[in-house]
Amino acid sequence: MTASRFSRRGLLGAGLAAAGAGVGAVAGVAGATAATGVDPFAAAANADESIDLSQQVPFYATAARQPQGGIRTTPQRHCVFMVFDLTASTATELQVLLARWSAAIAQLQAGRTIGSVEPAHGEGVGADTGEALDLGPASLTVTVGLGPGVFDERFGLAAKRPAHLAAIPTLPSDALEDGLTGGDLSLQACADDPQVAYHAVRDLARMARGTATVRWTVIGFGRASAGPSQSTPRNLMGFKDGTRNVTSDEEYERFVWLDSDAGWMAGGTYQVVRKIRMNLETWDADVVSDQQRVFGRTKVEGAPLSGGSEHTTPDFHAAAHGADADGATAIDPRSHIALAAHEANGGVKILRRGYNYTDGLNQYGQLDAGLLFAAYMTDPDHFTRLQRKLGASDRLNEYVSHIGSGVFAVPPAPRKGSYIGEQLFR
Amino acid sequence: MTASRFSRRGLLGAGLAAAGAGVGAVAGVAGATAATGVDPFAAAANADESIDLSQQVPFYATAARQPQGGIRTTPQRHCVFMVFDLTASTATELQVLLARWSAAIAQLQAGRTIGSVEPAHGEGVGADTGEALDLGPASLTVTVGLGPGVFDERFGLAAKRPAHLAAIPTLPSDALEDGLTGGDLSLQACADDPQVAYHAVRDLARMARGTATVRWTVIGFGRASAGPSQSTPRNLMGFKDGTRNVTSDEEYERFVWLDSDAGWMAGGTYQVVRKIRMNLETWDADVVSDQQRVFGRTKVEGAPLSGGSEHTTPDFHAAAHGADADGATAIDPRSHIALAAHEANGGVKILRRGYNYTDGLNQYGQLDAGLLFAAYMTDPDHFTRLQRKLGASDRLNEYVSHIGSGVFAVPPAPRKGSYIGEQLFR
Repeated sequence: MTASRFSRRGLLGAGLAAAGAGVGAVAGVAGATAATGVDPFAAAANADESIDLSQQVPFYATAARQPQGGIRTTPQRHCVFMVFDLTASTATELQVLLARWSAAIAQLQAGRTIGSVEPAHGEGVGADTGEALDLGPASLTVTVGLGPGVFDERFGLAAKRPAHLAAIPTLPSDALEDGLTGGDLSLQACADDPQVAYHAVRDLARMARGTATVRWTVIGFGRASAGPSQSTPRNLMGFKDGTRNVTSDEEYERFVWLDSDAGWMAGGTYQVVRKIRMNLETWDADVVSDQQRVFGRTKVEGAPLSGGSEHTTPDFHAAAHGADADGATAIDPRSHIALAAHEANGGVKILRRGYNYTDGLNQYGQLDAGLLFAAYMTDPDHFTRLQRKLGASDRLNEYVSHIGSGVFAVPPAPRKGSYIGEQLFR
Repeated sequence: MTASRFSRRGLLGAGLAAAGAGVGAVAGVAGATAATGVDPFAAAANADESIDLSQQVPFYATAARQPQGGIRTTPQRHCVFMVFDLTASTATELQVLLARWSAAIAQLQAGRTIGSVEPAHGEGVGADTGEALDLGPASLTVTVGLGPGVFDERFGLAAKRPAHLAAIPTLPSDALEDGLTGGDLSLQACADDPQVAYHAVRDLARMARGTATVRWTVIGFGRASAGPSQSTPRNLMGFKDGTRNVTSDEEYERFVWLDSDAGWMAGGTYQVVRKIRMNLETWDADVVSDQQRVFGRTKVEGAPLSGGSEHTTPDFHAAAHGADADGATAIDPRSHIALAAHEANGGVKILRRGYNYTDGLNQYGQLDAGLLFAAYMTDPDHFTRLQRKLGASDRLNEYVSHIGSGVFAVPPAPRKGSYIGEQLFR
């Protein structure tokens, strides 16, 4: 038994004493809790933070090759991701759907309804279901993606297939579940209000009836990382997630946005989405030193185990210190950050824009939760190569399962008067 | 086909025209959308609203018979509700759990961790899982409830059973599902940040290991209704929910808080929780005039169909106008507000504090969503009588199913140095 396990028992012991001794000793429970290491500055860390729900993100492009929102947009706090199968049989039906979705998304991002909530005299079905009335735009973005199926034999669009769009091959970490993979169209709705994000996807799904059916969905939450003064969001394992993410203009140009070689997709990108279940109960029972070894970083600060603070560049060659170091490196070569580092992947980065999710309890009464991993890149093969390596060796594999997967081409934003993917139909 | 259905077709028609005529006509899609009745002021309604995540709610009572937080507390935006079964066999184990939970909740509501996230040198299991570090208190409240099982033969506490605590009888609307009913203990964690609420329940569940196991959980979201200047939150049917709720001190004293007759429960209350699934796809296909008839209110404004604005007192005797009124009342006697009105229930009110929930998709690929209904009252029989009537006659029944149910006694808040339910063990 480790020291800290013992101190947790100590806490229980204090509780038992309280049970015998009455009120006075219960204060001892709180005292014991404090003694085990309460972080005294945790409460004040972001004490001045607030969220402004009146913010809106413009939908239409005002320049050439401008990307859709929801990619470089400062991550909003909530995300509803939904994937659709096309049931349409003609390119025109797809075109109409993309045109109607675009017009509707422009309305929604402005904080408006899609159409009438309450038709005259109530005589008719509402065009908008109404639950986001009065809620404001809440920085909503809806990002539309086109799956490989859009370019199959059904619609005559094969000649327009984006160069790198193809299903993700089977990977060593795959534990994919029926009904959580593939799909022809994706919607990623992110907002600072969950009801605004849910309403957007619900009403866009409703507009798609007769043209597309819902295939799978993941509803995520997270924490905005609104600039250098704010801390990096944490995943449900309690570790910061996104410290070495794509940030600069130069990196976005190099790793995320497609250039003029991509033809009609110039200014667009590729979206890879994975639903990654975390085995939280196993994780929570692990000693923190092992958790840190798995990630290669400290838990509270997020500093690489080679030293420094969160944003110090990891030194993957630095030797471990201590009695049992035995020539090992401070950062385990099979740790998540060592295997995922761009230094170990030909300099390649992908933009990660993940959200935590929870599905309640699983069949064993354990927490069913994890990460809605969404990433953007100039070629989905960048993800595939990375995940092939992680899936084979990453110490994190013991605690995660990749249960959902999809890949989509994300066209650039339309100009006013046009719609997403309009170039497909010229 | 109704007029509005036709105008939705018209919208589709505009899209089809766009598909043929190219870019110019697509603006017509947006134009057509606007013409169908966009609410021009929707975006600005709460334009100045923001959420302050540094707010904290005190946990300990500073006066006699002070209620726990999370009941009269201004509804926070997120809620994680979890129910536990006691596996303990002695009252002392229950006592220790309540004492440890109380100490931990006090820490969490102050925005602190429960204990160490990162034990010295990482050698040990973290007392706190860490994912809420840096997030602030976010107005967290954790409300603890005691189910009927606490007072059964197991713990020798039968003599302390709160007078009105008993399982909810079978009701006409019941479609209860295995694993979504009953339970010995409840935790209702509400916060303005979803990760703060989830973390609280996760780590309190972890503390309960060996004493209690998780039975069921519902994760809800909603909209704060922070005073008279803010609009009433909407449920996923798009209607305002809570217009005639308990609001004044006098009503809280009369309908919610237990008085000195309740002995050790004085200052406490009873909690009734229902997981109510909404058949949203059926609802969304209904004409708005029928939706309004079901609720007895207009959709956008929330005004009673007898006239006026949202907060106008409904007149259940007012006659309907129009050609086919035929002596009927403006508010259908089987509408939700007519049947639920305190005027029709011996003047009795219950405090409703619900959240919307979504569980993604059901087995048919339809939206699986609804209402986490939580209500507080001086006697659970007030709910039972109301729901017996609603379940038999309410026009809303066609669109909802009560799939989960629980009832709990909620003791008053403890003084500093004590813990929730301490009076049970004297």
